[in-house]
Amino acid sequence: MNKKNKKGLIIVNTGDGKGKTTAALGTAFRALGYDYKVCMVQFIKGSWNYGELDAAKKFSDNFELIPMGEGFTWNTKDKERDTMVAQRTWELCKEKILSGKYKIVVLDEINIALRYNYLDVHDVMNFLKKKPQDLHVILTGRNAPPEIIEIADLVTEMKEIKHPFKSGVKAQKGIEY
Amino acid sequence: MNKKNKKGLIIVNTGDGKGKTTAALGTAFRALGYDYKVCMVQFIKGSWNYGELDAAKKFSDNFELIPMGEGFTWNTKDKERDTMVAQRTWELCKEKILSGKYKIVVLDEINIALRYNYLDVHDVMNFLKKKPQDLHVILTGRNAPPEIIEIADLVTEMKEIKHPFKSGVKAQKGIEY
Repeated sequence: MNKKNKKGLIIVNTGDGKGKTTAALGTAFRALGYDYKVCMVQFIKGSWNYGELDAAKKFSDNFELIPMGEGFTWNTKDKERDTMVAQRTWELCKEKILSGKYKIVVLDEINIALRYNYLDVHDVMNFLKKKPQDLHVILTGRNAPPEIIEIADLVTEMKEIKHPFKSGVKAQKGIEY
Repeated sequence: MNKKNKKGLIIVNTGDGKGKTTAALGTAFRALGYDYKVCMVQFIKGSWNYGELDAAKKFSDNFELIPMGEGFTWNTKDKERDTMVAQRTWELCKEKILSGKYKIVVLDEINIALRYNYLDVHDVMNFLKKKPQDLHVILTGRNAPPEIIEIADLVTEMKEIKHPFKSGVKAQKGIEY
């Protein structure tokens, strides 16, 4: 078999629309169906909620969900602290990526950390280029930097065509959070 | 509470990119975390695979997955038979939507059936406009007709920016199927 065909993918879900994290969650769900192990690391507090956490628990043997953004929301204006949290989260991601335990590692909302320069895009790019061959890595968040798109295999832009919040409908439990 | 705020949404995942069905699956996963009941009806054979089916079984109490496209792939050129299957599938969707059993009903790849005129878009539009108020309905598939976008609350276009198949990488188990 061609080596290229066995390559684990670098997948990016970006854009201003819904479905970036949700599609990653769907991919996780799909992989769990094959009894693959999946790890999702959350860079930002509040990007997931109890719905996902409860669902994840039902898959607890193979689905590891790590909310690292706890305690900070990117609104603190404390750049030093935010950078520290983002970098600590990235250190954990690297550990998970190198662990050999997972089929998929999701770096949820990492694009935001890159966007704010809390992480060095070249560090992330160079590390991901040398990731274990069989592992799929999914990066989510709007404004994926060009350097990340450059090294990615599969990039999807989720584009907002119509959004209910704009016409005054509130967020829906089980849909939006 | 404002009635408008309690409204179940009509959600459309369209576009040529990945993640339309996968995001619906992620939304299902999210809702199942809240112990909501979810039904997904599949209009096209092969749009889901064993991964999803196995994962779905683990949620069997609350997740109903109905593959209706079995035995036909939209390539038969037998328009009469395809129309019959699509319409039978739509009848089932209507039944599920009206049943009151679910929080979310996913009409997977229905946009394809509409695109080929196997279903009448005005029938679908008029029915969905009168759907039970609390129910969320998700329609997936590329080329969502303007009539469906018109009645939808939330429309996301999944746009392909970069795709590995184009550079010769084969579909990945647990990622693509």
